[in-house]
Amino acid sequence: MTETVSTRAPLSPTPRSTLTRLRERAASDRAALDAVLDAGLICHVGVLMHGAPVVLPTAYGRLGDTLYLHGSTGSGNLRAALTGDVSVSVTLVDGIVYARSVFHFSMNYRSAVIHGRPVEVTDERERLRALRAIVEHNAPGTWDYVRGPNKKELAATVVLSLDLTEASVKSRTGAPGDEQDDLSSPSWAGVLPVHQFFGTPITAPDSITEQAPAHVIARVAPAS
Amino acid sequence: MTETVSTRAPLSPTPRSTLTRLRERAASDRAALDAVLDAGLICHVGVLMHGAPVVLPTAYGRLGDTLYLHGSTGSGNLRAALTGDVSVSVTLVDGIVYARSVFHFSMNYRSAVIHGRPVEVTDERERLRALRAIVEHNAPGTWDYVRGPNKKELAATVVLSLDLTEASVKSRTGAPGDEQDDLSSPSWAGVLPVHQFFGTPITAPDSITEQAPAHVIARVAPAS
Repeated sequence: MTETVSTRAPLSPTPRSTLTRLRERAASDRAALDAVLDAGLICHVGVLMHGAPVVLPTAYGRLGDTLYLHGSTGSGNLRAALTGDVSVSVTLVDGIVYARSVFHFSMNYRSAVIHGRPVEVTDERERLRALRAIVEHNAPGTWDYVRGPNKKELAATVVLSLDLTEASVKSRTGAPGDEQDDLSSPSWAGVLPVHQFFGTPITAPDSITEQAPAHVIARVAPAS
Repeated sequence: MTETVSTRAPLSPTPRSTLTRLRERAASDRAALDAVLDAGLICHVGVLMHGAPVVLPTAYGRLGDTLYLHGSTGSGNLRAALTGDVSVSVTLVDGIVYARSVFHFSMNYRSAVIHGRPVEVTDERERLRALRAIVEHNAPGTWDYVRGPNKKELAATVVLSLDLTEASVKSRTGAPGDEQDDLSSPSWAGVLPVHQFFGTPITAPDSITEQAPAHVIARVAPAS
């Protein structure tokens, strides 16, 4: 399932696909899937609304074999996500691939695509675990540092779980895949790396504590 | 249409929406839409396949009021995109918003969502303009620097155009929106900025030219 592709499209379509049944393969695929999910900040969720797909960015968290999403009880998109299959995509762009021809221009990337029917999480303990996973995914060290959700806030929150069984991972790494005839071209060929990093924390004007805590400071470094 | 939101979900759902007919408003909205599209590297396209949405990352380009996508003639996803409405989402994550409560954790972001029915571009001149827009979007200065597409490569490429009329832009900026009761909390509140930048170019082992050209070197700087 995990593969290095060198195709024309900068990011190649990942067909809707099921995880192979071979255990060994599945183990490495799952590790690759988890690695992409754990490295991403946001996902794009596709839901069906009025017969057409709607793609929206949102936060997520992962615990074992489950992806968690959350949102407001008033969200029409979340309601739509509970009435049919969804597609969740997490993509990390690692580089721009400069080829010697327009046709072979590409990107290096890691991409995970998950399909399935989300289920609303109703068990209060699982809801808390899921919300913790989502918050800790985007802001490690936070759950125990700030005020937890109260009853009113929990009542306003919908939590969805999505099984990671039907998922695929694709990636592209390395140099451009130019045509043999173009290898003598004087055009520079190579990769321009794309990095994401966290900058210097900006303290809110009304924050009593001026200095960001260690769990925030620790993130200020190249992150990918 | 452009709005600063401070909601519970890190990235709030953008409802499928039409551009307002008011000209003045539309102008500023279009400028905001164009700014997000021009700043993004990839989009996530949602298509309907076998009755369920499939979300995939891909490259894109913009010329005026048109978004262009491309891919292989063998791509089932592109074919699916021509048989019904699609949803295209471009999201830029600008920061992690650290609130004094779990409930108000959020993200700063800019998000564009476009809906519409893509059309296959068949006019050869428009196809070339579109491919140029896509390549120049991800690698400015490239089209005139490398070998252009030949007949065989063009025959293997499908180009789609999507009108930008039905689109929405959302963004969140600034400090966390905590509850009044939490403002006396000793928990640090603020924003951890997220930046994307291009690293030092990596020359391909078989590149005749060792030094990356000016149009590549010029990108090596914080990009967002």
